[in-house]
Amino acid sequence: MQTSLKSHADLSPRQRILKIAAKLFAERGYHAVGMTELGEAVELGRGTLYHHIKSKEDVLYDISRHYISSLVEHGNHILKTEADPKLRLQLLGKHLMTTIADHQAELTVCFREIYSLTGERRNEVLMLHGEYEHIWRQVLIDGEKKGIFRPYNPIRLKGLLGMFFYTYLWMKPDGAQGPEAIADIFNEIVLASVAGV
Amino acid sequence: MQTSLKSHADLSPRQRILKIAAKLFAERGYHAVGMTELGEAVELGRGTLYHHIKSKEDVLYDISRHYISSLVEHGNHILKTEADPKLRLQLLGKHLMTTIADHQAELTVCFREIYSLTGERRNEVLMLHGEYEHIWRQVLIDGEKKGIFRPYNPIRLKGLLGMFFYTYLWMKPDGAQGPEAIADIFNEIVLASVAGV
Repeated sequence: MQTSLKSHADLSPRQRILKIAAKLFAERGYHAVGMTELGEAVELGRGTLYHHIKSKEDVLYDISRHYISSLVEHGNHILKTEADPKLRLQLLGKHLMTTIADHQAELTVCFREIYSLTGERRNEVLMLHGEYEHIWRQVLIDGEKKGIFRPYNPIRLKGLLGMFFYTYLWMKPDGAQGPEAIADIFNEIVLASVAGV
Repeated sequence: MQTSLKSHADLSPRQRILKIAAKLFAERGYHAVGMTELGEAVELGRGTLYHHIKSKEDVLYDISRHYISSLVEHGNHILKTEADPKLRLQLLGKHLMTTIADHQAELTVCFREIYSLTGERRNEVLMLHGEYEHIWRQVLIDGEKKGIFRPYNPIRLKGLLGMFFYTYLWMKPDGAQGPEAIADIFNEIVLASVAGV
C-alpha cells in the first residue's frame, strides 16, 4: 500500500492527511489506527498534524461526510435531469459503482465505520446515508406510480444497495472487469428485480 | 452489548472466549482489540486466557473457519438432497440469511476480517470462502445446463452473494422483518436475476 505523502504532491496537506488516513482506516479499521501511527504515515510531527486536523474522529467525520454527501448531490442531479425511472436507476448504479471504484478506501470507511462516529456527527452522517437511500426509494416509488415497477419494498432496496456497497470488499482496482462493466451487470439485476409483475 | 461470561454459562471456556471475542472484533475491528482487553472482557487473567487460546490470530482463525465451514457443509448437504435448481437457490439463500442472523458478530468477523489473517491460515479460510461461492456457482451452472437459468456470470454471483453478506451491517436482531422474510425477498431477487431470457 502506498501511504507516502510524496505520491500526493498535488493535494493540500489536509487532503493528503485524509487520503492516507482513509487507506489506514480501510486496511486496519478505524479503532486500530492511532494518531501517532497516522502522524508517522503522513510524515508529520504531532504539532503539525494537529495544526491540520482537530482529532482522529474529525478525520473520520470529514471522510465519511464528504463521500456520502457527493453521492447524495449527484443522486439529486440525476433526479433533476433524467425522468425515466429505468434510466435513473442505471445512472444511479453506474455513478455509485464508479465512485466506489475511484475512492475504494474512502468508501470502505464511509460504509463500514458509520458507527465509529459519535454524537451529532454520527447522526449527521447517518442522515446523509438515509438521504442517499431515499433517492433510490423515490425512483422506485415513482416507477411504481408510473406502472413500470412492482410495488416498492424497503428490504429489496436494502438488498440491492448492499450488493453495490459490498463491492468495497472484493472489487480489485486492476480486476478483469472495470466498474462500468460491473455496474452494467448489477443494473440488470436491479431492473430484473423491480420489473412489473 | 452483553459481553459478560455469566450470560454464556452453557458454553465451554474456549467457546465463551470465542463468542465474546467475536462481539469485540465485530464492534471495534480485529486490529483494535488487544489480548489485555479480551482478557478483561472474559474475566480471565493472562495465564488462564493463554491456557485456552494460543494467540489473538488463533481466535480469529477459529471463528472464521468455523462459520464458513458450516456454510460449506450445509451447502453441500443441499446439493445432495435437493436437485431442483430454483429450490436449491432458495434453500441456500434461506440458510445463509438465518446463519448471519443467528451469529451476526461471528459472520461479521468471518466476512470482514479475512484479510486480517496471515499466511497459511488466510489461504485456508480464503479457500473455504471460495468453496462456498463454488456451491452457488455449481447450482447456477447446473440450472443453465437444464435450460432454466440464463448463462452463468461470475460478477452477477458476486453481487448476489454481496447482497446477503452485507446484511451483517444493517440487519437488526429485533428488526421488523425476520431473517426468513428477508431471505424470501432476496430469493426473489436471485431468481429474477437468473431467470432464462
